[in-house]
Amino acid sequence: MNFNYPNGKRYIPKTSVPGVKAKKLSNPSFSNRGMTLEEDLNETNEYYRERKIAVIHKKPTPVQIVQVDYPKRSAAVIKEAYFKQASTTDYNGVYKGKYIDFEAKETANVTSFPLKNFHQHQIDHMQEVVSQGGICFVILRFSKQEQVYFLQAKHLLSFWERMKNGGRKSITKEEIEQVAVLIPLGFRPRIDYIKIIDTVFHL
Amino acid sequence: MNFNYPNGKRYIPKTSVPGVKAKKLSNPSFSNRGMTLEEDLNETNEYYRERKIAVIHKKPTPVQIVQVDYPKRSAAVIKEAYFKQASTTDYNGVYKGKYIDFEAKETANVTSFPLKNFHQHQIDHMQEVVSQGGICFVILRFSKQEQVYFLQAKHLLSFWERMKNGGRKSITKEEIEQVAVLIPLGFRPRIDYIKIIDTVFHL
Repeated sequence: MNFNYPNGKRYIPKTSVPGVKAKKLSNPSFSNRGMTLEEDLNETNEYYRERKIAVIHKKPTPVQIVQVDYPKRSAAVIKEAYFKQASTTDYNGVYKGKYIDFEAKETANVTSFPLKNFHQHQIDHMQEVVSQGGICFVILRFSKQEQVYFLQAKHLLSFWERMKNGGRKSITKEEIEQVAVLIPLGFRPRIDYIKIIDTVFHL
Repeated sequence: MNFNYPNGKRYIPKTSVPGVKAKKLSNPSFSNRGMTLEEDLNETNEYYRERKIAVIHKKPTPVQIVQVDYPKRSAAVIKEAYFKQASTTDYNGVYKGKYIDFEAKETANVTSFPLKNFHQHQIDHMQEVVSQGGICFVILRFSKQEQVYFLQAKHLLSFWERMKNGGRKSITKEEIEQVAVLIPLGFRPRIDYIKIIDTVFHL
């Protein structure tokens, strides 16, 4: 199966100049400064690795390669390929010997988080990880409010189940405030989710 | 950095007809039957997932995307991309809550396993995983002899260290027989490495 990348969105290389979006921000303290959620998490993971706190990586974007050219004396060039839907979440790794697994998503919505940000494969994967005793969660960012939440997979799974049973297609902001943990944004690390894991999972 | 894929080898889609190579085999019992090591491990991991024994996935091949076309009413096409060197090992996941991480390599050599099959990034990653308490190892296949070994990362790291200090650039077969565990090949799962983990790491 081939897909537009993801939800038909275009692929935008993550090389935007920091600070460009920052002018728009209402709260410039430790806020996003034009960084994407992915960039913030990559920097956070780098921080964890450098300080030997945890080893967490983002998985490469899955691509179906169709045609490759092999020019003499230079690198192989992929000439035709398609984005594939991921069968797992984007981030995983190890912290204190435990398996860590998460997905990160953001919305421009203010009052709820749409469940269409996830797809069934990822939900199935999270269910499998939870069953296997892994530490599994999602990081949800409300971009307008500059708020980042840590939501345990078990809660996401029950909201997903509610949708499957004909219920609402999103999680309300109130529900998130009740069951998720707000992650304070910092300078380094930017999104200190390991601290939340310590609290929530008593590590 | 762009690379030929890996060690300048060409990218061969894994769609070869099973049985084609099987004629050459001296031991046809539960032997390779024309499957690559990657295919055997993918089937093994599928077996583990189906039976809820473990959740282990191969990471996608990392690709640097340069140009993408967006034709109307059809999937995005990647028109220019390059293979990147992986910064981690290929396989990871969760077993009984523990983080599992490994790399799989094969050689046509008979008397030793060349260390050039690994690169410094992977070695560094394995060191980090071991320090973080993860279960880390390599699966080594001697293709001529149809033998598959489970070698703990700590042993690989010391052979790598010996090479860095001017020692031999390979692990001798005798050394592998001493410190690694021979994995009996089966039908399903083909390469039952989880059983070895149970024994070696007392899970």
